[in-house]
Amino acid sequence: MARWAPDTRERLRAAAMELFAERGFEATTVPDIVERAGVTRRTFFRHFGDKREVFFGDDEIPRLADQMLAAAPADVPPFAIAWSGFQTLAAERFEPRRHEMAAARRVIESEPALRERDLQKQADLRAVLTEGYRARGVDALRARVVAGVAVDLLQTALEQWAGDTAGTPLVEHLERVRREMADVLA
Amino acid sequence: MARWAPDTRERLRAAAMELFAERGFEATTVPDIVERAGVTRRTFFRHFGDKREVFFGDDEIPRLADQMLAAAPADVPPFAIAWSGFQTLAAERFEPRRHEMAAARRVIESEPALRERDLQKQADLRAVLTEGYRARGVDALRARVVAGVAVDLLQTALEQWAGDTAGTPLVEHLERVRREMADVLA
Repeated sequence: MARWAPDTRERLRAAAMELFAERGFEATTVPDIVERAGVTRRTFFRHFGDKREVFFGDDEIPRLADQMLAAAPADVPPFAIAWSGFQTLAAERFEPRRHEMAAARRVIESEPALRERDLQKQADLRAVLTEGYRARGVDALRARVVAGVAVDLLQTALEQWAGDTAGTPLVEHLERVRREMADVLA
Repeated sequence: MARWAPDTRERLRAAAMELFAERGFEATTVPDIVERAGVTRRTFFRHFGDKREVFFGDDEIPRLADQMLAAAPADVPPFAIAWSGFQTLAAERFEPRRHEMAAARRVIESEPALRERDLQKQADLRAVLTEGYRARGVDALRARVVAGVAVDLLQTALEQWAGDTAGTPLVEHLERVRREMADVLA
């Protein structure tokens, strides 16, 4: 990807978020977004598949999950790989953009079309993790269960974090959700 | 609901499944289904919102979840309510229709439009359970976590059961998935 790419991408994202806040998600069109960002329609589609993708990191998270799985030494247990990946993701990618990400998540929760895409993204991540574990030799049921638990844990923590007015960091929400899940199943 | 309803509903479902098996899901239309079942188009839409709904029990499962939550004594812990509901659902509704349900699940997994609807159904059930627990006085995080764990557990067990050629009952798959989940989080 060319060097200008991240800037353009962020510019498009910022323009889209402004417009969604001003006019609502449905009323904002791709032409509106490219006009505000000062780029062409073609540039938009080089960065995002459609208007809904502005809310999601495209395939960024599944790609990171793939890298995590490939980089982890063979003796690391499956859940520990996802867990340490989430810690890194939370601290390095999500927490520094807390305000913007929490706002985006609130829009996602209020728009059926975005909730639907969000569910699809979660299912994609679950599939990438399941496949990745299988490729590491993890038994099929264990691979599916770890992936399911990990994705639901991340999702629940993100929801809690987006609705949290006390400013508790995402890593702490992850920890709380993990404890609750363990407690429920104990 | 009138006395004829379950029969018509099952007749429509059987006709649809036959056609999906013969022609595939995409190529089968609602007019094809009503012709095969010998009913009117209006009758179809009295029973199902659209072609995809034939694969799902409409709001049957969320409705049962609601009933379960309302009927459980106040001192039953949240996860135990879902768990005992799943046992009943498995034994009384799913296992007696194993062949048909497993076939339907395989079609769901092979059709993006059905997978999408399935994800939405899971999210709806999660929301019904979360709301139901909240209404029983369960703390917000616990309510969300129990609902998430329960839905993922049911979903994983259904997937395993649908792909199981050894004939292991669904209740046993539920038990296995529960043990795996507890073990992952221990």
